[in-house]
Amino acid sequence: KSLKGYAQSGHSGATMKVNGRIHADMWNFPESSAGVNGFESGDPAVTPQDRLGFRRMRFGVKGKLPYNMLYKIEMEFAGGSNPEFRDAYLGWDDMSWLHTVLIGNQKRPYGLDHLNSSRYNVFIERPFVIEAINQDARRFGVCSYGLSDDEAWNWRYGVFNQRLIQDEGNYVSDHLQGQIAGRLANTIWYDESSGGRGYAHWALAGTWADTDGNAAADNFADSGINEARFRHRPEARTDQRWLDTGVIAGADDYSLLALEGLVNIGPTQLVGEYQRLWLDRNAGDELDFHGGYVYLSYFLTGEHIPWERKSGTLGRVKPFENFFLVDRCSGAGHGYGLGAWQVAVRWSYADFSDQDIQGGVGESVTLGLNWHWTPYARMQFNYIYGDIEENADNAPVGAPVHGTYQIVGTRVMVDF
Amino acid sequence: KSLKGYAQSGHSGATMKVNGRIHADMWNFPESSAGVNGFESGDPAVTPQDRLGFRRMRFGVKGKLPYNMLYKIEMEFAGGSNPEFRDAYLGWDDMSWLHTVLIGNQKRPYGLDHLNSSRYNVFIERPFVIEAINQDARRFGVCSYGLSDDEAWNWRYGVFNQRLIQDEGNYVSDHLQGQIAGRLANTIWYDESSGGRGYAHWALAGTWADTDGNAAADNFADSGINEARFRHRPEARTDQRWLDTGVIAGADDYSLLALEGLVNIGPTQLVGEYQRLWLDRNAGDELDFHGGYVYLSYFLTGEHIPWERKSGTLGRVKPFENFFLVDRCSGAGHGYGLGAWQVAVRWSYADFSDQDIQGGVGESVTLGLNWHWTPYARMQFNYIYGDIEENADNAPVGAPVHGTYQIVGTRVMVDF
Amino acid sequence: KSLKGYAQSGHSGATMKVNGRIHADMWNFPESSAGVNGFESGDPAVTPQDRLGFRRMRFGVKGKLPYNMLYKIEMEFAGGSNPEFRDAYLGWDDMSWLHTVLIGNQKRPYGLDHLNSSRYNVFIERPFVIEAINQDARRFGVCSYGLSDDEAWNWRYGVFNQRLIQDEGNYVSDHLQGQIAGRLANTIWYDESSGGRGYAHWALAGTWADTDGNAAADNFADSGINEARFRHRPEARTDQRWLDTGVIAGADDYSLLALEGLVNIGPTQLVGEYQRLWLDRNAGDELDFHGGYVYLSYFLTGEHIPWERKSGTLGRVKPFENFFLVDRCSGAGHGYGLGAWQVAVRWSYADFSDQDIQGGVGESVTLGLNWHWTPYARMQFNYIYGDIEENADNAPVGAPVHGTYQIVGTRVMVDF
Repeated sequence: KSLKGYAQSGHSGATMKVNGRIHADMWNFPESSAGVNGFESGDPAVTPQDRLGFRRMRFGVKGKLPYNMLYKIEMEFAGGSNPEFRDAYLGWDDMSWLHTVLIGNQKRPYGLDHLNSSRYNVFIERPFVIEAINQDARRFGVCSYGLSDDEAWNWRYGVFNQRLIQDEGNYVSDHLQGQIAGRLANTIWYDESSGGRGYAHWALAGTWADTDGNAAADNFADSGINEARFRHRPEARTDQRWLDTGVIAGADDYSLLALEGLVNIGPTQLVGEYQRLWLDRNAGDELDFHGGYVYLSYFLTGEHIPWERKSGTLGRVKPFENFFLVDRCSGAGHGYGLGAWQVAVRWSYADFSDQDIQGGVGESVTLGLNWHWTPYARMQFNYIYGDIEENADNAPVGAPVHGTYQIVGTRVMVDF
Repeated sequence: KSLKGYAQSGHSGATMKVNGRIHADMWNFPESSAGVNGFESGDPAVTPQDRLGFRRMRFGVKGKLPYNMLYKIEMEFAGGSNPEFRDAYLGWDDMSWLHTVLIGNQKRPYGLDHLNSSRYNVFIERPFVIEAINQDARRFGVCSYGLSDDEAWNWRYGVFNQRLIQDEGNYVSDHLQGQIAGRLANTIWYDESSGGRGYAHWALAGTWADTDGNAAADNFADSGINEARFRHRPEARTDQRWLDTGVIAGADDYSLLALEGLVNIGPTQLVGEYQRLWLDRNAGDELDFHGGYVYLSYFLTGEHIPWERKSGTLGRVKPFENFFLVDRCSGAGHGYGLGAWQVAVRWSYADFSDQDIQGGVGESVTLGLNWHWTPYARMQFNYIYGDIEENADNAPVGAPVHGTYQIVGTRVMVDF
Repeated sequence: KSLKGYAQSGHSGATMKVNGRIHADMWNFPESSAGVNGFESGDPAVTPQDRLGFRRMRFGVKGKLPYNMLYKIEMEFAGGSNPEFRDAYLGWDDMSWLHTVLIGNQKRPYGLDHLNSSRYNVFIERPFVIEAINQDARRFGVCSYGLSDDEAWNWRYGVFNQRLIQDEGNYVSDHLQGQIAGRLANTIWYDESSGGRGYAHWALAGTWADTDGNAAADNFADSGINEARFRHRPEARTDQRWLDTGVIAGADDYSLLALEGLVNIGPTQLVGEYQRLWLDRNAGDELDFHGGYVYLSYFLTGEHIPWERKSGTLGRVKPFENFFLVDRCSGAGHGYGLGAWQVAVRWSYADFSDQDIQGGVGESVTLGLNWHWTPYARMQFNYIYGDIEENADNAPVGAPVHGTYQIVGTRVMVDF
């Protein structure tokens, strides 16, 4: 009964999938002003350095256990000697009105561009505001995931600890710094007749997060610091975060409101998000950060981006013709397939400077070209022009608090 | 012949299992005296901090290779950027009078509560003496595992290096610090007619360990320190070990005698262990440490804890009814299953203070409630009241050398 | 259609293999002169310390994806808390005149003994010059792998970044430090009639590497250092590299020429390699390093080492009789199998001292005994006598710059 040569899961009667992804990147910085140099290197004369290597190298296991339970562990090995976990949870499917319930490390439910898998996102890196407000997305928590019977509505809501523990494994502090968060999404139009080549979606999401301004005060362990910090790189890979509020002293709590909108008509997709965050401090006025982005994407070769109604996120693109290159039989030269070609443009904006917090105001335009080789592999090119202002908190003393930059990014990826 | 979409092992003709576990914990410290605060934080005014996160997050591979060989690698990823290996060995089944022989990282053969898998143990963390004398259990060694034909007797014996190398990978020192260790176990009663709902077991185990009092003297590498150190946390997860002898200067060798007894009658289980250790020093009198525990466990829902006669350890509990919650057909409300409910109480004691070594005397009572959701998943609650005395080696200067504490622990777990 | 209890790959229609290896080592240093002590410990009076633990503990996934793509991730966990990746790439089979093309971390194409898998190599550790000039072999690059229709010729060529990123994940520097490298190999004789028990091979390989003498100058990140450094341990496992040129200041570029030759006649194999490297400096004369080795291997039990014509590397030895030990039926004593027994001797030489660079001149003789238990497992014994001269760069001030040593190594290994 045992199939020699095949890998079994731990329990018969259970299912298991072993899967993963490889993303390899090259980043070049053809132009950067003195201010930007300072944000990155701490020296206005030293430019951001080029990068070559792995952005993601993951594999892990997931599966269903008898009696409607499920589990997942996904490891991120791109950091070499500094691995981290990503999705790491256990839970249940079909828990009556709770639908699916997961306990463990999972994405916080706000920001479409963060809920989308990095395998499917149109641009190489995520927009300013989406990543800054939900850095690395995953937190330890309990979350329910639901779907209406007609698949028009989907939602997720839960409680999370705000500390990012992918590298540490545990949060250690008497100050728990919890948050409640949720997202309600509506696939308001879905063209069944074309197999989903037309659809529209909107969603409303938010959180109330109980940061603790006194977290560090009576805490001997390392991780009990105030979790009120918002930061991001320039929608590219760099050494430092160029927008960064720092840990906001005395932060008491914050509220987030997030809006999403999306329309897809065949090869064309238009997406926009806006997020606004209000932060209360023990002393000092309320702070207000906000930002958003809009992108337009178009397939030169006519494909479309599928839509996952269950989760309200982007799906996997299937090229009409895969990319390949072969010798023809009878030596009649080469045969080839072109793959799918997609172009896109994104405008992104975020303002993390308010009153005494000068974490920067970023604005950038990205031109993207995606060459989908197969449904499981693609190459991406991004050209970014960006401008950062009012960034006193991240500039060396005496250096400019603003700057401009151009960045070129290239990625190849496969998932399995 | 190749099954598309399924994972193969490296060699046809071999078997492979991919398995693992996820344990997520919450620990709260509702009460701690000044002395206990000092053991944990170094400051009598700073209490132990709450914890939330992953206790275990493992996956790995194991299997049999043609011609009666076997292998296993199990990785522990709960530490995020600090992974460690656990079981990591190669070996043989059916090696004549040597039975099973394993070479590599494997559990040292003493302490029933350590030989039991963390998936099956009745309480969340292991008793004082069991963990302190066999810290993290696994060592690099060669060990034989045997079983009598009638399954009444099982034994394991081998030689090990005393250094814990799960985090380092290698022991580096001319001072080898070996030990011989063994365990002889007898399932003296096993009620076949009830499918193993009744059984009794006793075992005798021990080791002779050649610690080297001069290990650090002429050694330039990091790992050549004396391995005579016994320590444990308060049967819970904390930052520091509250009982800790420190590295005992001049330790020459030690001997351990360990006794186990267990009786199981249907839903009721009574277990006790006692361990005593004698340590010789180059200078100074022999040291004597000892401790033990007793627990009583009872299933409110009538299940029993199975017994593995092959290894002399606890097996996997199967609830009569799994825990679930579903919508009834025709909208007639909810249906549910309760799972299995188990209550337990444990008394534990250990004395690591003798002469000039004041590593602490710990005593604690734990109340446990286990909610078994399915055979593969459960939730555990522990309430611990403990008292530590004569703990001068772990108290800050001028702070109390004794203290009391209450701890509440909650764990959810799944294995696959 | 889903096979319960079996592990699936992420995509149906794809293949996946989960495989790995365990190598466990013991190293003893029965004799070392004062000079050698200094190379290792920094103190002529402190000898190299014995070692016990894991040399390799790997597992990972690889497979083919629909439409002729492939991927691989292999993790090395022997370092415990310091894992590293090994092979990590994506690519294509059957890319017309490009044959197989891989992008990612893969072996640089020079040095037969490095291209051979550690599972199949005759000696426990690799020769001086092979490892020193191609430290840890794998680099991030793009490489094409080809084979002639008659399998007589195979080749690989590509471009690589010189930085070893298995532990870091990325190279960060505006100084890219690329290299082009290639190997052309010819299986000049292959005796099909005996199933490949007779064969001969030669290969020519080389690289031109653009090291950057100014790499560190205007670079704020850690990894932008000059990659001109050649080093190796004493063909054994030690704390320090005993031959080491250090980072060669002002290195501008280097060229390598590598020659391989191999003849196998039944149980006997004779192999030799020679490598010579010329390095240009911004200031100062060209440097010249070189070395080689020869080994002779013989199976006492008559087996042979198979040859992989596709890659021009050693294959997996299959014992005529596996090693086992069983009780005979009817209690008539024990039955056993002997496995395959192989003896070998290697002479190795490398000269990394030229002008102001005194990285050492090493010469060693290794006696090897390999006990192949099964095709997937074996035990290896090596006795090494070595002599290192002209090693001023690695000797403590005032200590001898030369020395001799004896080393005994034992390894057990399995792969799956």
